[in-house]
Amino acid sequence: MKIDLENTFTRKRILITGGLGFIGSNLVLRLASMDAQVVVVDSLIPAYGGNTFNLEGVTQNVHVNIADIRDPHCIAYLVQGQDYIFNLAGQVSHLDSMEDPLTDLEINCRAQLSLLEACRRLNRRPKLVFASTRQIYGRPQRLPVDEQHPILPVDINGINKMAGESYHLLYSRIHGVPACSLRLTNTFGPRMRVKDARQTFIGLWLCQLIQKEQIRVYGDGEQERDLNFVDDVVDAFLLAAASPESTGQVFNLGAPSISLKCLAELMIELNGGGSYTLVPFPDNRKPIDIGTYRGDYTKIRKTLGWEPSTPLSKGLLRTIEYYRHNAERYW
Amino acid sequence: MKIDLENTFTRKRILITGGLGFIGSNLVLRLASMDAQVVVVDSLIPAYGGNTFNLEGVTQNVHVNIADIRDPHCIAYLVQGQDYIFNLAGQVSHLDSMEDPLTDLEINCRAQLSLLEACRRLNRRPKLVFASTRQIYGRPQRLPVDEQHPILPVDINGINKMAGESYHLLYSRIHGVPACSLRLTNTFGPRMRVKDARQTFIGLWLCQLIQKEQIRVYGDGEQERDLNFVDDVVDAFLLAAASPESTGQVFNLGAPSISLKCLAELMIELNGGGSYTLVPFPDNRKPIDIGTYRGDYTKIRKTLGWEPSTPLSKGLLRTIEYYRHNAERYW
Repeated sequence: MKIDLENTFTRKRILITGGLGFIGSNLVLRLASMDAQVVVVDSLIPAYGGNTFNLEGVTQNVHVNIADIRDPHCIAYLVQGQDYIFNLAGQVSHLDSMEDPLTDLEINCRAQLSLLEACRRLNRRPKLVFASTRQIYGRPQRLPVDEQHPILPVDINGINKMAGESYHLLYSRIHGVPACSLRLTNTFGPRMRVKDARQTFIGLWLCQLIQKEQIRVYGDGEQERDLNFVDDVVDAFLLAAASPESTGQVFNLGAPSISLKCLAELMIELNGGGSYTLVPFPDNRKPIDIGTYRGDYTKIRKTLGWEPSTPLSKGLLRTIEYYRHNAERYW
Repeated sequence: MKIDLENTFTRKRILITGGLGFIGSNLVLRLASMDAQVVVVDSLIPAYGGNTFNLEGVTQNVHVNIADIRDPHCIAYLVQGQDYIFNLAGQVSHLDSMEDPLTDLEINCRAQLSLLEACRRLNRRPKLVFASTRQIYGRPQRLPVDEQHPILPVDINGINKMAGESYHLLYSRIHGVPACSLRLTNTFGPRMRVKDARQTFIGLWLCQLIQKEQIRVYGDGEQERDLNFVDDVVDAFLLAAASPESTGQVFNLGAPSISLKCLAELMIELNGGGSYTLVPFPDNRKPIDIGTYRGDYTKIRKTLGWEPSTPLSKGLLRTIEYYRHNAERYW
């Protein structure tokens, strides 16, 4: 199936929650270049992914509205008149969710339900794409993990994202708000948070690499992850939004997997130097670690024609170059 | 396995949330008779199951504290010093959850997480038994439904109860708060709410029967349900609390199933008169109906030695008699 993305979004009105964040801002840039009319909502909470530099200088077709998705009045206003909603705002740190579970609940459950209620009351037209996570599966019981895999999250963030996704599917089925959900795996690329591992460990590793610190790999480094370059993930969001067939559905993203040890070696090689060390899991990480993960993305390939197209090395190289040039805006 | 229930709870300190409600109050009465020291917390919200008559005249061993489980300060105080917590407070109406999803979330998600946080901070000792629901399974994909059945709730209440249960299991696994969860199916008996179908359709049917109104059965009446008499459900709560083997586990309750048509006929026969009629599903009920349900309770039978022991007719007869004598306190 081939979807004509260029013409789908031209002059369309689009709301992107978390639009100053990592994936959100990459999505904004792509849509702005397609001549869509984009409203960004982002809270810029310092511990989260929002960063004004991600959209610095971008004014054509983009309006940035600083607000918290927990503010139901703001969201109720902003959903009106939209043709598409990309719903990426969220608390993403697993550790933070264990330390402060109620904040995670307010953002990943309550605010999501509140946004959907606003759509139900005020605008049931927009196609809504929700950024879900492979974390809801918990520790894989089989590999690769397809969408039928049991949902057994191992941390508060996983539980709340599971509920957040379920709300979207329910509002699609019962209330006719056309929503779908992408279960993201590890995404990396320009504009990710790198000052800590709150958003992704790859960001922290990259920061350590460029600052000539040793990369710290937890455990024996044999655990595998599948990594998507952000441009591919943006493609998936656009395809999911453009296709009526995605409505009411969930889709895994995914990629060929690599062990963390091999990933560290590859990043060091691409960087032209560096080192890594194996360290034991910290006490607070071990019980919520999920071991090896590899997603089965057959469904989205067959339904929407998506597959990851950026080779891992190429994506990592572009990422390293981006942060070499823009280090001071992300450290 | 045989657990000595009598001696387990003697002089133990016990908190029961929702203790003026249907199952909660039956549990209170049993525990008080075992010489346990029971604190009841109940909000008495008129649309919910709490009813002061359920514990009228009961003062020996029971202290009633009117409070909302959404009040974190109250709950933080009350969990301290307890040996057991039976956590039954909840919003249970599926229709209400669709109309007012955020209230359902506050009670069934946020307040649950808040109670668990209070345990984590202040008292990790009490065995905690959570009242979950078969509603989290959604429409059965196979019968009977065991605990491995996919979790695909069809309404907001099911989603929020799914999250609420997951929090309990997580706090058991990660934080050492010894919790378990019972997935209840349709429970009936003395002290249930009968003035509407918010808690159970059986209550409403019984009210219609005693008031000589026609029982209204939705659809073709062929859909099946498995019904547990409340005394059996109380047994399950006590066994789950008393057994260390239940910690971190979920258990279905269940019973042999009966079609709604046959159930209506049985109730009319036991009542010595009455009638029923088949009516189409109301528009707001049809999309959240789950069809036929029958639970597989092998796991709790093998692990805790529980099985339903009250024959359906006997339970219904006791229920009809109870409401004939106490109609004015429940209508």
